[in-house]
Amino acid sequence: MNRSYFKKLETHDNNLPLELTTVIDQLAFNEKGLIPVITQDAISKNVLMFAWMSKESLYLTIQTKHMTYWSRSRNCLWVKGKSSGHTQSLTSMAFDCDGDVILCQVEQVGAACHTGRRDCFYLNVDLDKSKVTVTGQATL
Amino acid sequence: MNRSYFKKLETHDNNLPLELTTVIDQLAFNEKGLIPVITQDAISKNVLMFAWMSKESLYLTIQTKHMTYWSRSRNCLWVKGKSSGHTQSLTSMAFDCDGDVILCQVEQVGAACHTGRRDCFYLNVDLDKSKVTVTGQATL
Repeated sequence: MNRSYFKKLETHDNNLPLELTTVIDQLAFNEKGLIPVITQDAISKNVLMFAWMSKESLYLTIQTKHMTYWSRSRNCLWVKGKSSGHTQSLTSMAFDCDGDVILCQVEQVGAACHTGRRDCFYLNVDLDKSKVTVTGQATL
Repeated sequence: MNRSYFKKLETHDNNLPLELTTVIDQLAFNEKGLIPVITQDAISKNVLMFAWMSKESLYLTIQTKHMTYWSRSRNCLWVKGKSSGHTQSLTSMAFDCDGDVILCQVEQVGAACHTGRRDCFYLNVDLDKSKVTVTGQATL
């Protein structure tokens, strides 16, 4: 990661857009060439899932508008919904202040979670009782 | 990470809450003992920031309801807003299906971003023009 690059952007003129490829070249892909991605429902604003992208999958996502991650378990490109039909169409994308996280808003078809639940965050902490409740039902 | 543990939870009875400490013991802290945290504004539902927690900072967050991360740059516990006053009060918490990400909703006082912006995702991608626009102003 080039921290000095993103440090300069903190006060960059809002009226002078930067080349996307230049910014992507500075993003903090980790030692495995991956960067974290937060995927949020464009309408409900619920956080649907968290995954990783390689530079290639990032460019594919931008070009096709179909969310394309890097599957760490299968070690390959992962076009979301390619087999399940539960696709995610990209509607907006932003990078964070440090250039080490990507936030994507998407139109979700069906379920974001592999269990069939709408999103992956179904293990809810009861902060007062120190319990965890499973919510929703697995349908896949 | 204990994938088989979270696999079983996919179909766990919604009416049988689990002990929080048991679930936390199974979370996928990485080789540095850290787990990713997505922090979302409880009211606007905007994603405010992305950071990391150690097991200690997770327990401190739950006990105090003040978001407490692990600072990877300073290598220490980081009580959000301790010096700036821009605190985050925890209102809800959830773990994802794989037990490798934490989602927190918070009441944010002031700015979540170190630049003084409300959130950290101010580098907006113009998907059609392949440009990145800096939004908001640095005030800190």
